[in-house]
Amino acid sequence: MNTPFALHVAATTYRGSAVENRHIAHVAVVGAAGRLLYAFGDPSRLTLPRSAVKPAQALAVLETGALERFGFDESDLALMCASHSSEDRHVARARAMLAKARVTEDDLRCGGHPAISEEVERAWIKRDFTPTPACSNCSGKHAGMLAAALAMGWQIKDYERPEHPLQQQVKRTMAELTDLTEADIAWGTDGCNLPTPSFALERLARLFMKLAAAADQPAQTSPREAALARIYRAMTAHPELVAGKGRYCTALMAAFGGKVVGKVGAEGSYGLGVRAGAHGIEGVDGPIGLAVKVEDGNGSILTAIVTELLHQLDIGTLEQRAQLDAFRAPKIKNTVGREVGHIEVNVPLARQAMS
Amino acid sequence: MNTPFALHVAATTYRGSAVENRHIAHVAVVGAAGRLLYAFGDPSRLTLPRSAVKPAQALAVLETGALERFGFDESDLALMCASHSSEDRHVARARAMLAKARVTEDDLRCGGHPAISEEVERAWIKRDFTPTPACSNCSGKHAGMLAAALAMGWQIKDYERPEHPLQQQVKRTMAELTDLTEADIAWGTDGCNLPTPSFALERLARLFMKLAAAADQPAQTSPREAALARIYRAMTAHPELVAGKGRYCTALMAAFGGKVVGKVGAEGSYGLGVRAGAHGIEGVDGPIGLAVKVEDGNGSILTAIVTELLHQLDIGTLEQRAQLDAFRAPKIKNTVGREVGHIEVNVPLARQAMS
Repeated sequence: MNTPFALHVAATTYRGSAVENRHIAHVAVVGAAGRLLYAFGDPSRLTLPRSAVKPAQALAVLETGALERFGFDESDLALMCASHSSEDRHVARARAMLAKARVTEDDLRCGGHPAISEEVERAWIKRDFTPTPACSNCSGKHAGMLAAALAMGWQIKDYERPEHPLQQQVKRTMAELTDLTEADIAWGTDGCNLPTPSFALERLARLFMKLAAAADQPAQTSPREAALARIYRAMTAHPELVAGKGRYCTALMAAFGGKVVGKVGAEGSYGLGVRAGAHGIEGVDGPIGLAVKVEDGNGSILTAIVTELLHQLDIGTLEQRAQLDAFRAPKIKNTVGREVGHIEVNVPLARQAMS
Repeated sequence: MNTPFALHVAATTYRGSAVENRHIAHVAVVGAAGRLLYAFGDPSRLTLPRSAVKPAQALAVLETGALERFGFDESDLALMCASHSSEDRHVARARAMLAKARVTEDDLRCGGHPAISEEVERAWIKRDFTPTPACSNCSGKHAGMLAAALAMGWQIKDYERPEHPLQQQVKRTMAELTDLTEADIAWGTDGCNLPTPSFALERLARLFMKLAAAADQPAQTSPREAALARIYRAMTAHPELVAGKGRYCTALMAAFGGKVVGKVGAEGSYGLGVRAGAHGIEGVDGPIGLAVKVEDGNGSILTAIVTELLHQLDIGTLEQRAQLDAFRAPKIKNTVGREVGHIEVNVPLARQAMS
């Protein structure tokens, strides 16, 4: 293939021997201080990580003292970082968080949507249920934000607006975690109605490197580092709350037993943090961060690529990685169940010059 | 943007002012004798047009005499060319076709699948209905093939297998319509379990040019031309049977009142035939064919591109094209109904050297 975009093709789907689709992707792998270790495609691609930055939004909430103020526990914190499947356990916890903060579902400014879980969605359709804001995959984050506004003594009205002091606080936190200035980050509006940032893909890798780095510290040197470590532990201790049954983030964090934190974002983005000693990158002893963006937003191609990268960077053990085999090479079957195609992922990472 | 794949980007989605996704696509526009008039991307991209070649499969069925033998009418022929929405009218007609051919649903070798129509799918879920083969979006084609096998005195068992004489006949027909040798065409297996071809995208444009050309002839000069004209007329006279409520092919053919035939294929392919006088290409008096393939298979990007091309090539009238406005620039709304992004399509066609 000699077309100009060949260089960035990360995945190809075949039907029989013929190419069906090709997908371009970008990858950044960073180490200490955000140094770029490996790249594929354009590691500087300006990217909307969407829900992959939920840990950063959760940090802004955590730093208001809202968790202590309203008695949120580590499971609640995990749900604040979640794009959950709207399973009963998720929606019930979101409602419980609202109750703890003494607010109601009417205060939420996210909207209902079809459940990410096909099983939940079918159950909703069967009983004519119209999903309410508490059912949103982002309801944990929104409940956390309501609590944060209250903890700071701000009005909860318009908490989702870019000009609300809480979102201003989120902006500062996002800039700090990505080592950017606030002016470097452009903001759009997310599916759940909150401001959502865009910045270079390698900065998403940096954010997840910082999460893993904080978890690596036996005694955190700063309140921020302690907060990041707490978020890391909440997500990895409760992977079933961060996504749900059969979902990638849940399977990933369950498989790696606390050594890896990962979060998907809509439209094909992913952030991954790996603790020191849990990867096989030569000459790198510390934690790493990894970020992926599929140019066309395809989600199953995304998780195939992330899983391939786990192998390439020797993250965890073979046995741990094998638990994600179904995501690495999803089968292409037809309506009679016959396997009629396959996906080939090819993301040869280029080692970056040592600086 | 200066990354290597920039040249082929046909559509960009934005969230706020930030780029969210980019989609690569390929376009071929051909005139008389398949001469390439315009291109974008790689017009020779080897492509699996999937259901976009249903008119060619229908031709192979038609040429067995099956329609006369079993009393199929023009609506049945339209359903043979359809990727229908599994609405009641579609499934009932497929069942009626089976009855006319004196075969049963057990003879079908396609499988059920979630309905393309969300409305139908929800209704199925509500009543715990498991879709049967007659509900397949391809059931008209399969019913036609069963009838064709019977008309030729072939066994209907294994009619879907590549070695069955009917599929051999389809292979010859496909080669003839694309002016290729049989050896030039690679075959995979489709979602509905039939052999499905791959060939250069411009050959799909040629196939649709031939459909429009046949419809242009006041008196067809050959039985093949008469058959192609009949297929063209069946599809354009019954657009609601070729797809369904709210679907692109249906809206397109309804809008252009017989001047345009169009058919979508899974994974982002489209074939379009335009009759002489219904386009504004300077120096080209005859019919044209147009084919599009979205590299990543995205369907809503596909129909946005096709609609944009209708404008660029001045196909039909402004009023006719306006009926497809919702497909040209699908709105990106979030869960509270707020418009948070937009799609920009940019497919500047390059006029090819006259040969």
